[in-house]
Amino acid sequence: MPKTAPTKFTPPPNLKKVRKGLVIVNTGNGKGKSTAAFGMMLRAWGRGMNTMAVQFIKSEKSRYGEQMAAEKLDIEIISSGRGFTWTSKDLSEDEAMAKHGWEIAKEKINSGDYHLILLDEITYPVSYGWIDVNEVVEVLQNKPEMLHVVLTGRDAEPELIEVADLVTEMKEIKHPYADQGIPAQKGVEF
Amino acid sequence: MPKTAPTKFTPPPNLKKVRKGLVIVNTGNGKGKSTAAFGMMLRAWGRGMNTMAVQFIKSEKSRYGEQMAAEKLDIEIISSGRGFTWTSKDLSEDEAMAKHGWEIAKEKINSGDYHLILLDEITYPVSYGWIDVNEVVEVLQNKPEMLHVVLTGRDAEPELIEVADLVTEMKEIKHPYADQGIPAQKGVEF
Repeated sequence: MPKTAPTKFTPPPNLKKVRKGLVIVNTGNGKGKSTAAFGMMLRAWGRGMNTMAVQFIKSEKSRYGEQMAAEKLDIEIISSGRGFTWTSKDLSEDEAMAKHGWEIAKEKINSGDYHLILLDEITYPVSYGWIDVNEVVEVLQNKPEMLHVVLTGRDAEPELIEVADLVTEMKEIKHPYADQGIPAQKGVEF
Repeated sequence: MPKTAPTKFTPPPNLKKVRKGLVIVNTGNGKGKSTAAFGMMLRAWGRGMNTMAVQFIKSEKSRYGEQMAAEKLDIEIISSGRGFTWTSKDLSEDEAMAKHGWEIAKEKINSGDYHLILLDEITYPVSYGWIDVNEVVEVLQNKPEMLHVVLTGRDAEPELIEVADLVTEMKEIKHPYADQGIPAQKGVEF
């Protein structure tokens, strides 16, 4: 009998059995990296899964739409930054906060209490060298098997891309700020 | 006195005054188009804004994470599709459902009752010619001024890109299905 050559997109026979927690990276210069991650948290929450986020850049003092929503939903968001770091005068405090955020993140990841953990804008403190990329990779490689971890931020380091299962680049095609002088819109972009 | 040449990225002086509802398109072959849109809805909901979605492809019979979440949050999601249309035998019914979804969408957009409306996966029925792209453009151009409308789906028509204020391409860099034979994960991807 003639054998049919397998096509490129034939799913493997054990497809339904392979389930595992994914390492997901949303990177790129466009909008939607964090927003999609919050959408994933919302889906997980909708299914009754346990989810939480550590935000590495956003200030604990500001009020973002996602933080207000998370509060209403009883989803824990830990903010471990002071806002936009490029306006900071004393970077050592930002660095200390980022390191502290990473300690919390490790604890949460290793606790086994969650289905989905978001490390929001972690690429920045990793790029600055404040958080050791090799340690992040090691923690991700040894995470609880069914836990999904989502990492966001521009310019994800190659090591993070390498360890990830799913990587999406959000690419800016058209932006109202640059094109029309429209500022970020409350309730949509923050 | 010498005049300083304006740099390319100087925000216009009236930046804070210019606020308007945006037309946002999330397109591309990667993940996160709908997920980011649901994240925007979550932010809007967190700020107490009115938001709703019309889903043009997803079946009203299936149970998706975002639908389960929306139900808990009392956010209206109207599903006007039968699931993945490329498995359909009778496309006329899909077409009728898409047209019906668009009628509802128009009504919602023109009602003035919402701050953010999502037209999820509308690019597909538009590409098929089931929904007239020129009518979509016209409705978007005449929408209530402060209403944000988010359109998602692959291969957004040039007319939709043109009318949009903010366009992001979600680009697949690495995907577990293709690379490792891992199926879509409940609570994260759907």
